[in-house]
Amino acid sequence: MITVALAKGALLKDSVARFAKAGLDFSAVLNPSNRLLMIPSKCGRANALLVRNGDVPVYVAYGQAQLGVVGYDVLSEHEMSVANLVDLKFGDCHMSVAVKETSGYKFATELPPYCRVASKFTNCARKFFEEIDLPVELVHLTGSVELGPITGMTEAIVDLVATGRTLRENGLIELDKLFDSTARLIGNPLSLRLDTGEIQQIVEALQIQASSIVIEK
Amino acid sequence: MITVALAKGALLKDSVARFAKAGLDFSAVLNPSNRLLMIPSKCGRANALLVRNGDVPVYVAYGQAQLGVVGYDVLSEHEMSVANLVDLKFGDCHMSVAVKETSGYKFATELPPYCRVASKFTNCARKFFEEIDLPVELVHLTGSVELGPITGMTEAIVDLVATGRTLRENGLIELDKLFDSTARLIGNPLSLRLDTGEIQQIVEALQIQASSIVIEK
Repeated sequence: MITVALAKGALLKDSVARFAKAGLDFSAVLNPSNRLLMIPSKCGRANALLVRNGDVPVYVAYGQAQLGVVGYDVLSEHEMSVANLVDLKFGDCHMSVAVKETSGYKFATELPPYCRVASKFTNCARKFFEEIDLPVELVHLTGSVELGPITGMTEAIVDLVATGRTLRENGLIELDKLFDSTARLIGNPLSLRLDTGEIQQIVEALQIQASSIVIEK
Repeated sequence: MITVALAKGALLKDSVARFAKAGLDFSAVLNPSNRLLMIPSKCGRANALLVRNGDVPVYVAYGQAQLGVVGYDVLSEHEMSVANLVDLKFGDCHMSVAVKETSGYKFATELPPYCRVASKFTNCARKFFEEIDLPVELVHLTGSVELGPITGMTEAIVDLVATGRTLRENGLIELDKLFDSTARLIGNPLSLRLDTGEIQQIVEALQIQASSIVIEK
């Protein structure tokens, strides 16, 4: 029996559509009245584990799920022991440094040394500022990171940007991009090694779907 | 101008009621159509900053809010530099170790050494298991911690329990209690020292309300 960890939220609908095309119908998870966290596929061959974004790599790393779908942003932040199998090419967004539009800064390198930077992704932010050799004080927040500069607590933020609407609504502009992010299929390394073909078949089906998307572009 | 950091979620309604009695009417934050994160009080003397539970101590520690209301559980987990001013005596819950009912364990000390324990509160859990001298492997999850034992990933969980409904629904039972938690009024230490009476007046009003609750019991 294969278990697939799916992230609640923005990636769920596309994840379900991809797995359906690959032969595993988890559409029951999209039913708004569903309260279950573990849901069998229609064929009964697999289970979906419905968890929060950041928990997908945990369940896959510990082998409770053999496969999972999660944003590259979460993978970069947590660095769990999982295999990054397929770029599924949906859920496009990017990780950026942003500041108040009125601040006058054009590049992250212009930020004052030891300034404060708010982020939900403090590991990603730390790596970025180390690379540009700028010492900053990171302030970990769990939500509404844009409040950092608005309240004056921090000079900048490092956050995920999809449409840019939240930034615009809060008078913030992007300075530098850390990386692009899309949904990724991840796998438990040991399960992949012990696999007798069942997992590989799903991985390949998802890989073919994803590569056809490039051709369509 | 005083800024008060209020936690979205379960504590919000009671927090607003207490501040209203103390002379600051933030009832606009309870309007379901409200999208603002910073909302002035009716009298215009103060602002409410509407943030996530875990972010309240951050805004208060950095002085962006002089006062804040947050659960004792969050305070214990994050250990920010804030003054713990008043036990507001609402939002009662407790932090517990729980296991599958079928596991047969009666006390946390009976758990096998090096077993896995899932929690959103890994700092609280670490302190507890150090105190009872039991080495465990902590697995940090961000939501639905009960899935740890259900999927077999962990032997136990450390989580907040209010009514106990989630535990019962998932076939889990409590073993030991780490601590009781209620909502706390916290303050920025420097703001409290520089206060000319304005903050103190609110703190005292909330203190009197809270102590009258004891007498009513």
